Amino acid sequence: MFNFTFHNPTKIFFGRGQISAISKEIPADARVLVTYGGGSVRANGVLDQVLAAIEGRTVFEFGGIEPNPSYETLMGAVEVIRRESIDFLLAVGGGSVIDGSKFLALAPFAVGDPWKILSERQRVDRALPLGTVLTLPATGSEMNSGAVITKKSEQAKLVFSSPLTFPRFSVLDPTTTFTLPVRQVANGVVDAFVHVVEQYLTYPVAAAVQDRYAEGLLLTLVEEGPRTLAQPEDYDARANLMWVACQALSGLIGAGVPQDWTTHMIGHELTARFGLDHARTLAVVLPATLIVRREAKREKLLRYADRVWGLASGAEEERMDGAIAATRRFFESLGVPTRLSDYGIGAGSIPGLVAALEAHGMRALGERRDVSLEVSRRILEAAL
Amino acid sequence: MFNFTFHNPTKIFFGRGQISAISKEIPADARVLVTYGGGSVRANGVLDQVLAAIEGRTVFEFGGIEPNPSYETLMGAVEVIRRESIDFLLAVGGGSVIDGSKFLALAPFAVGDPWKILSERQRVDRALPLGTVLTLPATGSEMNSGAVITKKSEQAKLVFSSPLTFPRFSVLDPTTTFTLPVRQVANGVVDAFVHVVEQYLTYPVAAAVQDRYAEGLLLTLVEEGPRTLAQPEDYDARANLMWVACQALSGLIGAGVPQDWTTHMIGHELTARFGLDHARTLAVVLPATLIVRREAKREKLLRYADRVWGLASGAEEERMDGAIAATRRFFESLGVPTRLSDYGIGAGSIPGLVAALEAHGMRALGERRDVSLEVSRRILEAAL
Repeated sequence: MFNFTFHNPTKIFFGRGQISAISKEIPADARVLVTYGGGSVRANGVLDQVLAAIEGRTVFEFGGIEPNPSYETLMGAVEVIRRESIDFLLAVGGGSVIDGSKFLALAPFAVGDPWKILSERQRVDRALPLGTVLTLPATGSEMNSGAVITKKSEQAKLVFSSPLTFPRFSVLDPTTTFTLPVRQVANGVVDAFVHVVEQYLTYPVAAAVQDRYAEGLLLTLVEEGPRTLAQPEDYDARANLMWVACQALSGLIGAGVPQDWTTHMIGHELTARFGLDHARTLAVVLPATLIVRREAKREKLLRYADRVWGLASGAEEERMDGAIAATRRFFESLGVPTRLSDYGIGAGSIPGLVAALEAHGMRALGERRDVSLEVSRRILEAAL
Repeated sequence: MFNFTFHNPTKIFFGRGQISAISKEIPADARVLVTYGGGSVRANGVLDQVLAAIEGRTVFEFGGIEPNPSYETLMGAVEVIRRESIDFLLAVGGGSVIDGSKFLALAPFAVGDPWKILSERQRVDRALPLGTVLTLPATGSEMNSGAVITKKSEQAKLVFSSPLTFPRFSVLDPTTTFTLPVRQVANGVVDAFVHVVEQYLTYPVAAAVQDRYAEGLLLTLVEEGPRTLAQPEDYDARANLMWVACQALSGLIGAGVPQDWTTHMIGHELTARFGLDHARTLAVVLPATLIVRREAKREKLLRYADRVWGLASGAEEERMDGAIAATRRFFESLGVPTRLSDYGIGAGSIPGLVAALEAHGMRALGERRDVSLEVSRRILEAAL
């Protein structure tokens, strides 16, 4: 096991009716900016519950944070924060709203253009406190300090994290997810699955607990993902999916182990260029990554085949093939395609994608930093 | 799944050489009381590493905190804290030293006799900050807010917890455990195992992640426990054992699920009356608890039989018997006896133990509060 530091101070309120718990978590004299996305939280009553819970505070709203939250949109909220002397942020929505709100927590204290937090990895030493009410289980942003922001004008999708951007608290009420569109639920299952795989399917370092936890999360997704789609108001399935997705990226399964993230980095370019949903890029890139990098991942691929898919006998090559095929079948069973051609993206697009990876500094991806641009090109070819 | 609140702000520094990390975690002008036990940390060099890391602070030492830390001993440290205006506690040792230091964190701010924190559940609204350097993986106290303190004069062993007694940080360096006596290592494996079981082997509430995590911890203990005993300087085995024991009682696997703790409460009386090691009481009481309460635990016992011991076929009764027998064999393989008679404790002691449970308010134990004094008596009889 590698040495590690683990610290996750986010307080989780989990379950039915827990939105009311936030009344004790935000100061009575706070000036709160409530952030949200396209307005579904208004339609389904979640926003009303939130506003009722924080009654008495001075409340402003900023809606319209889009999927793959953009710098351009968020800078409008930065203006509100400055003008209204906001001192607490409350994000109500999915990973995009929460990621965007993490940017808002730091942006007022950035030196110069806040985009430098991403483009130049500028360290910011203060942040507005942030709470979240999660309505879409997928990204795990509700219990970590990272965020992904897109600058539309540059077709750039970049990552930042700061110890200051852990949410103070996050509310996870599974009933808020009952009305989600099927597509978003399926995307969430894939997103959480690939988050786990990026931290698990690398090479063994004798990290027994992390492996068992990761396998437990994958097994739960395989069991509960389809159930959630088939029975949208099954509370237990929703609750398990919500807790899995949160745990997948809370830092715990990634502590002390190698991490890959190749699939994410290549996927980001697909979203930036073609607008594909984040999770759909992962479903396309992951099987291709496993095919191209099967030797580097041999030992963990065999463990994955055994412990997640029950493939314990037969030749090693067959078990590895079986695990990759099972992964692909699982995504497709959720209605999520796994090939670039399913989106009309052909071989002609690959040079541009590789060039974008190069432009964004992604020359050496993977758990051993040996996924060169050439390897990424082969992964994209395998994804056609 | 039940509703839950989860919050664990302890920062973990894990791995070789991590003791040096504490230099950044304690203020430069702090007046630190370093607490420890019988002096093994002095003999094995851990205390020297700690003192080197906090050089420059005003440092006092308080040694001699015993296994099952006592109010009587700890009140001596409270005097030092008051006299020397201590403003930071640094516990160096195992669960007893850490538990005792949690008491020290609150005691200076108690109203009247600090024993009331336990005997009357007095809420204390301030605490000294506490850091820990763990040298014995077992209790999980390094990453939770609970503690168990014994008042020798009353033969009472009671529990408290407070949100203020989470350690600010804990250092887990597996190499500090290389020189532990075999008996302590075996005790630690049993202690961690039973911590998991108390939160897992109850009744199902469709908490998929918590179940998978708990099973992962148990499987890791079954694999790594014997390896740790056979090869004391196997870093990976030590590291896995240290992380399992920490995870077992960090709150995560117990969030949103029923919990039992019958075995612990009956075990505490055995320690208070006969001085048995804490873990040894658990090894005696757990199999008996499973025998007496097999109907109440049927569904989870079958899951445990399947997922931890690989007993998936045959009649249900056989699988349950098999799981209970496997548990007993596992403890005994570690050199830990599993019957009261192994300690010379006979049926004549049972009335006194039941009376002690009654005196300490333990009339309704278990995940459904239906373990009456009569059921506890039957458990003790089954443990003979």
